[in-house]
Amino acid sequence: MSISIVSSTTLFPNPNPNLTSSSAPKHLSSSISPLTPSPKPPKPRLSLRKTSSSSSLRVRSAVAIEKETPENERPETFLRQSDGGLVSSSSSSGPGSSVRARFEKMIRDAQDSVCEAIEAADGGGTFKEDVWSRPGGGGGISRVLQDGAVWEKAGVNVSVVYGVMPPEAYRAAKGEGNSGAKAGPVPFFAAGISSVLHPKNPFAPTLHFNYRYFETDAPKDVPGAPRQWWFGGGTDLTPAYIFEEDVKHFHSVQKSACDKFDPSFYPRFKKWCDDYFYIKHRNERRGLGGIFFDDLNDYDQEMLLGFATECANSVVPAYIPIIERRKDTPFTEKHKAWQQLRRGRYVEFNLVYDRGTTFGLKTGGRMESILVSLPLTARWEYDHRPKEGSEEWKLLDACINPKEWL
Amino acid sequence: MSISIVSSTTLFPNPNPNLTSSSAPKHLSSSISPLTPSPKPPKPRLSLRKTSSSSSLRVRSAVAIEKETPENERPETFLRQSDGGLVSSSSSSGPGSSVRARFEKMIRDAQDSVCEAIEAADGGGTFKEDVWSRPGGGGGISRVLQDGAVWEKAGVNVSVVYGVMPPEAYRAAKGEGNSGAKAGPVPFFAAGISSVLHPKNPFAPTLHFNYRYFETDAPKDVPGAPRQWWFGGGTDLTPAYIFEEDVKHFHSVQKSACDKFDPSFYPRFKKWCDDYFYIKHRNERRGLGGIFFDDLNDYDQEMLLGFATECANSVVPAYIPIIERRKDTPFTEKHKAWQQLRRGRYVEFNLVYDRGTTFGLKTGGRMESILVSLPLTARWEYDHRPKEGSEEWKLLDACINPKEWL
Repeated sequence: MSISIVSSTTLFPNPNPNLTSSSAPKHLSSSISPLTPSPKPPKPRLSLRKTSSSSSLRVRSAVAIEKETPENERPETFLRQSDGGLVSSSSSSGPGSSVRARFEKMIRDAQDSVCEAIEAADGGGTFKEDVWSRPGGGGGISRVLQDGAVWEKAGVNVSVVYGVMPPEAYRAAKGEGNSGAKAGPVPFFAAGISSVLHPKNPFAPTLHFNYRYFETDAPKDVPGAPRQWWFGGGTDLTPAYIFEEDVKHFHSVQKSACDKFDPSFYPRFKKWCDDYFYIKHRNERRGLGGIFFDDLNDYDQEMLLGFATECANSVVPAYIPIIERRKDTPFTEKHKAWQQLRRGRYVEFNLVYDRGTTFGLKTGGRMESILVSLPLTARWEYDHRPKEGSEEWKLLDACINPKEWL
Repeated sequence: MSISIVSSTTLFPNPNPNLTSSSAPKHLSSSISPLTPSPKPPKPRLSLRKTSSSSSLRVRSAVAIEKETPENERPETFLRQSDGGLVSSSSSSGPGSSVRARFEKMIRDAQDSVCEAIEAADGGGTFKEDVWSRPGGGGGISRVLQDGAVWEKAGVNVSVVYGVMPPEAYRAAKGEGNSGAKAGPVPFFAAGISSVLHPKNPFAPTLHFNYRYFETDAPKDVPGAPRQWWFGGGTDLTPAYIFEEDVKHFHSVQKSACDKFDPSFYPRFKKWCDDYFYIKHRNERRGLGGIFFDDLNDYDQEMLLGFATECANSVVPAYIPIIERRKDTPFTEKHKAWQQLRRGRYVEFNLVYDRGTTFGLKTGGRMESILVSLPLTARWEYDHRPKEGSEEWKLLDACINPKEWL
């Protein structure tokens, strides 16, 4: 089987660490191996010189994963025509109003509005855009602002993937009921937005957010087996120093978004976030949390689409006011070095634990899109310990002992 | 089962990437799960404030892994008394002359001589030492020189581990023959030296070396089942810029060490090294290789002990002359930024692929010892591509297309 995962970090990031591997993440646990191309041996004689004028790093794309085709322009949609990709969305009963189509529109709108807000707040940097597509449908838009006035690296990616999962994964996703049924591979659809924003000023926090939608077709030859769908995502804050008003503001915006849909969402997804972004070998979270959820399908689908949309729309009001307050705060080399150490933790979490990153790298996702989450710079000191009671110690304490901010 | 792995990076680093997971690394493939403590849920209420004056990062040590006891002095040996730990090594027929004892002596001598050479060449920095032991036997010495005149971070660790592996792992290690035999857990012994040396000057290369010895007891209740042993290790060079004379010198010292024992060693272990230090998602090696071997037991044991000793003794003559030539070479910010990008690759390899690091972090090894391999500073730029024909491009080319340097 040969499928491509574009920017997997957008789509497969986030198992619930509270679930055991046998039960979660249900759509991934049994699908990883068949979705994973068998490891290719190194191609030691693949010569860089054989490429045309462009570089090196494209060489791998050409041989190790199924081709992405760079595009000069953003297409109106990455959906297949059969998904209503070319049908006007004004026909609300037509395929253009499918959840797939509306989710794609939502993430692309969110990408535009977040990038616009980032550029306005940065006041200097602009996003570089890479657009690509896959021959069989799907594609993505990567936008990166690097070495701006306020952000050292800001990436905002959207992608749409058409793939195939093995029937075991489908059965695991829908429950044990018909595990005896024979069925062929099950096509799936996934779309998501993923972003990491690393500012320069050590008092201005890093933000990550990611929202995604997943759908399987009904398997052929299994009468009555339904299609499956689920939502996942979250928004979380990673400062190097704590300003309580910032963290409270951030969490209160997340809670407001949640409370519009279900009062149980914020406490549940806040805890899920603290549990997910856990750097086990350090017994620390990477930051001060926010909300996180995955495999969400036990609510009305329209309601969850609305919820994901609300969350994505909350990114700018949750984050930009904090940046405006902190971006010009004077700092010393000591503050910067501590920020760099925390960036090192960010790298550790993403490369060691984040399912989207590790899965994406190992299956041949678009590497540059996946690794755009890494900071421009990071630092590791041997056995560094902040002085008890210091501002650095307070941040570390809050990463070890998650707090209720509201 | 509760065992502790001290500085696992020293001991379990290096499966042969050419082997499939079902066949390699034979001593690890079936032992990982039983050796791995079942994932502990986050302890969100573990308060940092409960610790005594020392920090934060010790908290985790106290709860998540079996205790290491800090020691004020280096013991003469970390061996258990039953291994001849307290018997004078002058009695050559006594237990003091066991391979365990002689290997420990070898790695501790190598640690001393490498650290002495590093301090002399640095001319400013000194190593900070941490000594620890385990109640049931075993322990280690970590030495780190940070922010010296020549090296930004230099770590040289030795450790000795007593643990227990499941019988399946033992059977896998010795072959399929008696897979029906019932046996209890098999005690093992492991000892190793591990070092990563990151200089400041971008024209001075990073060096990594690691030599280790592994032994199992014979399993109880299985008459005639032998004890198993094997050696592993290697030395490899990671420059940011190529100086052919440096790389040739380095490889020629490795080849000389190999050739004293078997003419097949250098070509075989050179290729193994190129294959092992492979960053799959980039189709690049992390550096310019050297030698690497693992699971080596199909030669005379004394011969292999001699070979590992020769390799460890070759570190200083292979590396220090290169450092002397390059440590004061003038450089620009551009050179430094490229070195930092290559450091980012180093981090990617170690956190994503290096078996010792990932295994060590997940099983609760001494985290600071494991992560001392990470550089002080690293950098990630989105989609960076060196200009074709540039010095940066030449290094990248050699990482994509491994060369024969001799």
